[in-house]
Amino acid sequence: MSELKNDLFLRALRGEVVDRPPVWMMRQAGRYLPEYLVLKAKYDFFTRVETPELACEITLQPIDIVGSDAAIIFSDILVIPQALGETVLMEEGKGPTLPHTVTTQADIDALQVEGAAERLDYVCKAISLTKKELNGRVPLIGFAGAPFTILCYMVEGKGSKTFDRAKQFCFSQPHLAHQLLQKITDATISYLKAQVAAGADCVQVFDSWSGMLAPEDFTAFGFEYLQQITDALSPLCHVILFPKGSWYALNQISHSGASGVGIDWTVPAAYAREQTGNRITIQGNFDPARLLTSPAEIKKEVTKMIDAFGVQRYIANLGHGILPNVPVDNAKAFVDAVKEYKKK
Amino acid sequence: MSELKNDLFLRALRGEVVDRPPVWMMRQAGRYLPEYLVLKAKYDFFTRVETPELACEITLQPIDIVGSDAAIIFSDILVIPQALGETVLMEEGKGPTLPHTVTTQADIDALQVEGAAERLDYVCKAISLTKKELNGRVPLIGFAGAPFTILCYMVEGKGSKTFDRAKQFCFSQPHLAHQLLQKITDATISYLKAQVAAGADCVQVFDSWSGMLAPEDFTAFGFEYLQQITDALSPLCHVILFPKGSWYALNQISHSGASGVGIDWTVPAAYAREQTGNRITIQGNFDPARLLTSPAEIKKEVTKMIDAFGVQRYIANLGHGILPNVPVDNAKAFVDAVKEYKKK
Repeated sequence: MSELKNDLFLRALRGEVVDRPPVWMMRQAGRYLPEYLVLKAKYDFFTRVETPELACEITLQPIDIVGSDAAIIFSDILVIPQALGETVLMEEGKGPTLPHTVTTQADIDALQVEGAAERLDYVCKAISLTKKELNGRVPLIGFAGAPFTILCYMVEGKGSKTFDRAKQFCFSQPHLAHQLLQKITDATISYLKAQVAAGADCVQVFDSWSGMLAPEDFTAFGFEYLQQITDALSPLCHVILFPKGSWYALNQISHSGASGVGIDWTVPAAYAREQTGNRITIQGNFDPARLLTSPAEIKKEVTKMIDAFGVQRYIANLGHGILPNVPVDNAKAFVDAVKEYKKK
Repeated sequence: MSELKNDLFLRALRGEVVDRPPVWMMRQAGRYLPEYLVLKAKYDFFTRVETPELACEITLQPIDIVGSDAAIIFSDILVIPQALGETVLMEEGKGPTLPHTVTTQADIDALQVEGAAERLDYVCKAISLTKKELNGRVPLIGFAGAPFTILCYMVEGKGSKTFDRAKQFCFSQPHLAHQLLQKITDATISYLKAQVAAGADCVQVFDSWSGMLAPEDFTAFGFEYLQQITDALSPLCHVILFPKGSWYALNQISHSGASGVGIDWTVPAAYAREQTGNRITIQGNFDPARLLTSPAEIKKEVTKMIDAFGVQRYIANLGHGILPNVPVDNAKAFVDAVKEYKKK
């Protein structure tokens, strides 16, 4: 492994003193870059995900083009249901569909945890290749979906505004829900360990739908499994938890042993700092819709954001994934503004 | 006007001491009741909304069937864009569509504030009729959408998970956004005043999408106009503001002069009380998906909820609209549990 030339991201996660915050953007690998759209037109979604050379190329694009301080491997959170034996369809512009939903004991029993991580070996190959190609320029982030979010898709069978069927499943059949969450968690831990073995410097766990849960339900169906993952992974690498919308759980998460926590743009910096103390690095929280304004406006807002969070124990990022229609110059303005940040 | 036989709801809004909290359910008029589905099969959406006899019948159904402590007039928040001159289509199972989106100065100039309230006279007729039919059994709530939420639909032209186009419009053309918001606000104030004149005892303002905004943006594009509505209406009747997802604004809202604030199920009772003091009555916040469990489970959870909020300055309700597939017995169990609540 070549020595890291830019380890700002890892130093921020360790809580070391830095001159400026590191910066990357969620979903930076893909979506808004013309170079990505060329590959998207040529190869379908799972070909891009499952071909290490393509995943590597897509992962490197934002490093070369916008210059972020960390790379994140191009993949998808729904590879876990696939590895457990479910069919996942990804139709352009329609979002994911899982035609066989998981709702009974028999459905859960049929899921194959054993060998799941091995079936995702193509991700690890992409990680190894990307580490080699990065040649120490910046650290590489691996990732997985959080168990509750994966359950949402497996039970609902598709995206939803409110995931009521998934929640009904949890509330009315908690015994089954916990079995399913445990199977997802076990597969996810093996999968993330394999990503670290392949070279990931950090893993981020995306709980995109945890904000649909009341605090007590998040503790039972969300946090319990995030904690298991953190316990298993944090001895091996940095762990960032991103339970989107779970503003009420920041204190809880700051005691999990994770290195970082992602927050969305509804969470004020002062509240986030007050809830998490100096126990964890905060990552976020630019409103992705603000990247649709202008470079000048973006630079002004980024400066305000860093003023509010401070330079230490902070990673500049968006509060959710970048939108596909963001002009590349605007994405660059975001990254540049962080790099140019000077404290008054 | 006949004397109110059950004024528990209004007493809770005035902050008077009560023996138990009042209870109603958002979207109780319609959706889950078989008696409603009969009318739905017979008349299309806007016929149901625009025919006072039908709107009245639908409004009374939950009073007769589940026994809530307040009625809410059956209508829709998108009648305001209609009254301003926009076309609104409501296709079953598809959500609303506004084929002509509002994005330019000319689009805004074309909106007709004058006469907007008069064009919604059918709602006032429905309110007068319902007040008569209620014969003082319970108070009647009128309502409107909040200006930011109405802007979302007018700019985006349909529902959305994130309303990025609407937010882009606000962030990149704030001058136009404020003009549009002001027009919506002016029409909404006249409309709500007419509802009060027709007999509404209270008006609720639904800001269903305010939670998509960061706190500062909520202040600029959301709260500013909620405050104008509150200033205009609170001398005439009780005002309840429900900025869904704007947990960060509870303190701000508690100083608005509104009588009540709605909160969703992610907001812990202790946090809500701490932020709002004794300045405002809190309404909420049962997770609608929990109504899909069982009557016994619902009663247990309702008791926990009231234990947490306390009996005073509190209105038991859901944290968002009732789901269409909730069994009537479960809705009844929710209402009964509040009525049977005895403080330990």
